[in-house]
Amino acid sequence: MSFPDQPSVLTPSQARALFRTGVSPATTSGWCRGYAQANLLVVPKDLAFDALLFAHRNPAPCPLLDVTDPGDPHPRAVAPEADLRTELPAYRIYENGVLTGEVGDALELWRPDLVAFLFGCSFSFEAALAAAGVPVRHIGQGRNVSMYVTDRPCEPAGRLSGPLVVSMRPIPEAMVPTAIEVSGRHPEMHGPPVHVGDPAEIGIQDLDRPDFGDAVEFAPGDVPVFWACGVTPQAVVMASKPEFAITHSPGRMFIADVSDAP
Amino acid sequence: MSFPDQPSVLTPSQARALFRTGVSPATTSGWCRGYAQANLLVVPKDLAFDALLFAHRNPAPCPLLDVTDPGDPHPRAVAPEADLRTELPAYRIYENGVLTGEVGDALELWRPDLVAFLFGCSFSFEAALAAAGVPVRHIGQGRNVSMYVTDRPCEPAGRLSGPLVVSMRPIPEAMVPTAIEVSGRHPEMHGPPVHVGDPAEIGIQDLDRPDFGDAVEFAPGDVPVFWACGVTPQAVVMASKPEFAITHSPGRMFIADVSDAP
Repeated sequence: MSFPDQPSVLTPSQARALFRTGVSPATTSGWCRGYAQANLLVVPKDLAFDALLFAHRNPAPCPLLDVTDPGDPHPRAVAPEADLRTELPAYRIYENGVLTGEVGDALELWRPDLVAFLFGCSFSFEAALAAAGVPVRHIGQGRNVSMYVTDRPCEPAGRLSGPLVVSMRPIPEAMVPTAIEVSGRHPEMHGPPVHVGDPAEIGIQDLDRPDFGDAVEFAPGDVPVFWACGVTPQAVVMASKPEFAITHSPGRMFIADVSDAP
Repeated sequence: MSFPDQPSVLTPSQARALFRTGVSPATTSGWCRGYAQANLLVVPKDLAFDALLFAHRNPAPCPLLDVTDPGDPHPRAVAPEADLRTELPAYRIYENGVLTGEVGDALELWRPDLVAFLFGCSFSFEAALAAAGVPVRHIGQGRNVSMYVTDRPCEPAGRLSGPLVVSMRPIPEAMVPTAIEVSGRHPEMHGPPVHVGDPAEIGIQDLDRPDFGDAVEFAPGDVPVFWACGVTPQAVVMASKPEFAITHSPGRMFIADVSDAP
């Protein structure tokens, strides 16, 4: 099955139905305009307190939208009809901190002790950026957003620690204040940028080589603007090496039924 | 040791030092003006995920200010020097949901698997109410605030469920909008009222017989205004009957080092 011509006008349940049948776009950026998108982290119950505490202590990368009861695949706060095991474009499997696979559904991996966390995503404020006249380069270029592992540590929680991951958008210099203001209104989608300008200041050596997603081209006068990113839990899983975790594939998000308006 | 004449001007560390030496006022309402006060819930690690999830799902009664690592008695986000085992006026012990004691410190009860939660308290916005010209009757009457168990269920989380507890303040009818506006600016201290007017509508039979705290006298023209209350976790402990929990004594709060300004 192919992608729809205008994924922006799909409802979340239509998009999720496509993903359930095997459609798997390279990114959900721009899909289902007006609806919140979310990062997924699934861990065994044994690690769930540490994960929830990590989210509480690191609200910028991990703004909590929903937490399931152990074994329950339905995110009852943000999309009660959805099934988190099948309705994302792709899933990553981490064993002892190592990425061991990327799969189209998590049905066979599901266990009765698994707890799922959904964190807000910066894709949700991209429509607000565009509405304010701020170009969103990676959408125009048909690419996934660029994501980088920084040298900034997150606040640890129990067995979980690791570096902050950021998403980066090239923004025309004169529009940086607008981008800060618009995203700042969305704390549930990572809020305002964590850094503007020189990537080396947060430990990023080369913007052309993102750790996740695609490199994105700058227009003349663009400056790099960095937001806390919901891929952070994946960097934390890699650093902390829990026995087992499932996540979304970076840039290929869960699309919730709730609005992306603040 | 006696109470100071003007507990409102004490710093939090001065007040906590008094409590540590055995001073135990009937309420901390009005103490340490300008600083946040907090409700305490301590549970074994085994129940900590359920408790943290309960707080996430019930932010009005349980606005989360801090969570400790297992065994750590220091609330590192809001008062890193403080010791939660000794620096509250009084502690309640619950075994299998039954209140089995009230003690002046929790040193002998402390265990390496205990996790402490601090939730915001409506005492923190009482100074803001007073500054806006809204009388706070129970302070004027030298009493603890009135607290009631309602018939409204909280959103359950794992093994934890139970009714919402509210605090009640008599407010002159013309000032109710001001009280709503002022408290609404403080979501981290329970936010706006959950109910105004007829107590029977939320299952309270007799305002003169509060479930916790003292009865408070109404002035002519006052109406009862009800806020979600951080004693809710105690009602939840009574309803859910976990093996072991420690809480503050209602109205006798932990006083944090952080400001009560929003």
